[in-house]
Amino acid sequence: MSATYESFIAAVREIGVLGSVEALLDWDSETYMPEGGLMARAEQISLIASLTHERRTSPKIGEWLSQLEGRVDDPAAQTNVREVRRAYDRATKLPAELVRRLSKVTVVSKEAWGKARADSDFAAFAPHLSELVDLKRQVADLVGYRGERYDALLDEYEPGMTAAEVEAVFTALRGPLSDFVKQIAAAPRKPDASILHRHFPRAAQEKFSRRIAEAIGFDFQCGRLDVSKHPFCSGVGPVDVRLTTRYYEDFFSPSVFGVMHEAGHGMYEQGLPTEHLFTPAGQAVSLGIHESQSRLWENFVGRSREFWEGLYPECRSNFSEALGSVALDDFHAAINIVEPSFIRVEADEVTYNLHIILRFEIERALIGGKLEARDVPEAWNAKMKEVLGITPPDAARGCLQDIHWSAGLFGYFPTYALGNLYAAQFFEAAEKVMPRLRGDIRAGNFADLLAWLRGNIHQHGMRYLPGELVQRVTGRPLSIEPFLNYVRTKFSPLYGLR
Amino acid sequence: MSATYESFIAAVREIGVLGSVEALLDWDSETYMPEGGLMARAEQISLIASLTHERRTSPKIGEWLSQLEGRVDDPAAQTNVREVRRAYDRATKLPAELVRRLSKVTVVSKEAWGKARADSDFAAFAPHLSELVDLKRQVADLVGYRGERYDALLDEYEPGMTAAEVEAVFTALRGPLSDFVKQIAAAPRKPDASILHRHFPRAAQEKFSRRIAEAIGFDFQCGRLDVSKHPFCSGVGPVDVRLTTRYYEDFFSPSVFGVMHEAGHGMYEQGLPTEHLFTPAGQAVSLGIHESQSRLWENFVGRSREFWEGLYPECRSNFSEALGSVALDDFHAAINIVEPSFIRVEADEVTYNLHIILRFEIERALIGGKLEARDVPEAWNAKMKEVLGITPPDAARGCLQDIHWSAGLFGYFPTYALGNLYAAQFFEAAEKVMPRLRGDIRAGNFADLLAWLRGNIHQHGMRYLPGELVQRVTGRPLSIEPFLNYVRTKFSPLYGLR
Repeated sequence: MSATYESFIAAVREIGVLGSVEALLDWDSETYMPEGGLMARAEQISLIASLTHERRTSPKIGEWLSQLEGRVDDPAAQTNVREVRRAYDRATKLPAELVRRLSKVTVVSKEAWGKARADSDFAAFAPHLSELVDLKRQVADLVGYRGERYDALLDEYEPGMTAAEVEAVFTALRGPLSDFVKQIAAAPRKPDASILHRHFPRAAQEKFSRRIAEAIGFDFQCGRLDVSKHPFCSGVGPVDVRLTTRYYEDFFSPSVFGVMHEAGHGMYEQGLPTEHLFTPAGQAVSLGIHESQSRLWENFVGRSREFWEGLYPECRSNFSEALGSVALDDFHAAINIVEPSFIRVEADEVTYNLHIILRFEIERALIGGKLEARDVPEAWNAKMKEVLGITPPDAARGCLQDIHWSAGLFGYFPTYALGNLYAAQFFEAAEKVMPRLRGDIRAGNFADLLAWLRGNIHQHGMRYLPGELVQRVTGRPLSIEPFLNYVRTKFSPLYGLR
Repeated sequence: MSATYESFIAAVREIGVLGSVEALLDWDSETYMPEGGLMARAEQISLIASLTHERRTSPKIGEWLSQLEGRVDDPAAQTNVREVRRAYDRATKLPAELVRRLSKVTVVSKEAWGKARADSDFAAFAPHLSELVDLKRQVADLVGYRGERYDALLDEYEPGMTAAEVEAVFTALRGPLSDFVKQIAAAPRKPDASILHRHFPRAAQEKFSRRIAEAIGFDFQCGRLDVSKHPFCSGVGPVDVRLTTRYYEDFFSPSVFGVMHEAGHGMYEQGLPTEHLFTPAGQAVSLGIHESQSRLWENFVGRSREFWEGLYPECRSNFSEALGSVALDDFHAAINIVEPSFIRVEADEVTYNLHIILRFEIERALIGGKLEARDVPEAWNAKMKEVLGITPPDAARGCLQDIHWSAGLFGYFPTYALGNLYAAQFFEAAEKVMPRLRGDIRAGNFADLLAWLRGNIHQHGMRYLPGELVQRVTGRPLSIEPFLNYVRTKFSPLYGLR
């Protein structure tokens, strides 16, 4: 390795270390920080963020990049040069004044959004949304794009993906999925949702969630599980992964499936190559691929019939008051209820992507200048009617439900649906090479599946862009077929269809 | 405030913020970090420490100091200029090579100490101790001193204090205290220590410790209490103070008195002026003064008869299995057992200072070149015999018991004893102006005492050096009298003396 690369990578590692310090400060804010610590924490985070930004945009990085580009052979080094270039270009193209303004406006907007949502008053939020859209359009213009403005924003979360590609996938998915939801709504069989709303003691939930996270392969030697208001997965890298969840004594699903979801993220993190800790070569490739790992464990494994064939007896004895007299079939049907609903984060596997498609269409139109902020509620409600057949009773349960736009996150939503599609495609590919996979899941043996994910996805870090990775792992480009097959095969019998 | 001061204080705040980030990383390492996270944490801490050092020794700080010295009127600004000068001079006088070497040697020495203590093998530790003494002598010579080398080291922990002053105090204390310990050892009355070693359920200890911390005034809106192997108080400043403790189901004292001790530190932190957050004017003045606050709450309040007259009924009902049939008198006697023992951290109020005096005499002789590292065990055992009348059976229970020297902490030990003396002097002063203090303690009203400490000590931050502060608060310089009066008045009746 050249002396130039050594200097370069030492600086890159520093940026990574600072990022991990910020992640830990954030984790602490959400888990253990006492209320009074808020303002001091804001100062800590703001200082670390500004030290990171300073380093990320240092002219020295630009010089090293010019010297190294095309002159490194090692794949990890190539990955690091490519990804640092991407981040450097993005960061240096934005004037400090715009970055400061954006950061200020998002603070104010998030505050305004919180109030507007509480009051279900979209008009109060509209001017903030409008200002944010305007700023993000400026960002897109400065960053640059080949197809359309939205591409420049999407690229930050799903490198290499374009709005046109997302559109192609989503358009193909929209009709069949929406039809399938309507078929299910009209189906003769109706699972009993109330089973999951009986009394599930918190201590038993904590024990059981942890037990499942351990069973599927989350390594508690290199990770933790704590409680926070909103569940997340964060941490310092593969060696120290922090999951959080929440417990409701009157609802079984959030803790168990939430923990499987976050543990899916966490196992991806734990599978990243530690020898590239704190550099892009040792980091996750995209939000979409990250989400594929969480959804794969939460849904493809966690809501499968086989998983509960193995685990339900233990589950029933842990929660005997609630589940003592509930048959496996009824439990399995209850954890797989499909129902058009207003709130994305509560949506089931089948309707979830439709929530995302409508958000993508709206935010793309906003960034593309084809929709005004003030017209969002109307567009939202029309699309909800179209894809799910329901109309939100108010903005709080409609276009004000998510924090993302108020935080300036445009181009982020599609990665949730992409995660579901990738998960289906990965799971299908895994099944092909592991014909006994479903039997393994029934037997509580998750090691082979995890090893397959490690070998095919985790260990590569950022070496391949999401598109390349999907092609390499599954032998074809991103497709909606595996997902549509999966939901049809799984949910048709559950609802007595066909 | 001048523009120069504004720039200066912004830089000083950054140093403070970085220090608080490091403190949080340390706290997390001791409380929640999973095992696997160790190496990544070391990288985080080392980067933050080097960023701090870089800023602390920046020539810009030197320039600002020269421009500001003698030209600021505001007391807080004067404090900041004075204390930043002290830190800047210390830091810039030491060549980077020596700092690196010291940091490396302490890592190796701590490791060697751990092993040597486990094997009770002083010979294995002696070369490390010798090397550390040599390096700290170099440090002292570079930092400079007026009296003797040891002063330069002591000054880091107890600004303004000299070895000669400590010697004067300790010499006066040594004889009378040692005599009193011997009187107690020969006393007719013997409390029953076994009371405190019955079964004390962990959950009840947790609840009770927290209840006491709250009662005496620790603010959980701006602080936390967690579990760690070694108890400590740390945090991000007055708004976010982190205490830790440990629980033994077969020993009552460590959690309750440990929490009162750490809460004493914590309430000092919480009483520091938030308007000077992250600057010296908003920080604690010295280790000795800090220790005075912890010892005041732990011992002068927490082991007093009045405190338990108020709280014992509740305590007994919380731990009914262990204390149901124990009378207040016996309980109070048990928590105040005086007994010569080998281990400092387990020592009682009366013998504790003797442990410190012997360490001071030894480390002063080491730094002064009057004692060789290899001769420490002999000196240690001779002094133990002299002051406590006992001889350690091995080095593990003798001169290898404390981590301090292996960590390069010379000049640190005296602050523990100074804390006890300050505490006695402060408590005596408080009683003078609050004649109802003991009644208040009995009634569970601690607000007036805390307010007095806030007003007289906490709110000043680093404004006064320890010596000045003691003079201001108590009207006289540091004296051993209040401490000797306190122990004689308290322990004579407990042991049926005189």
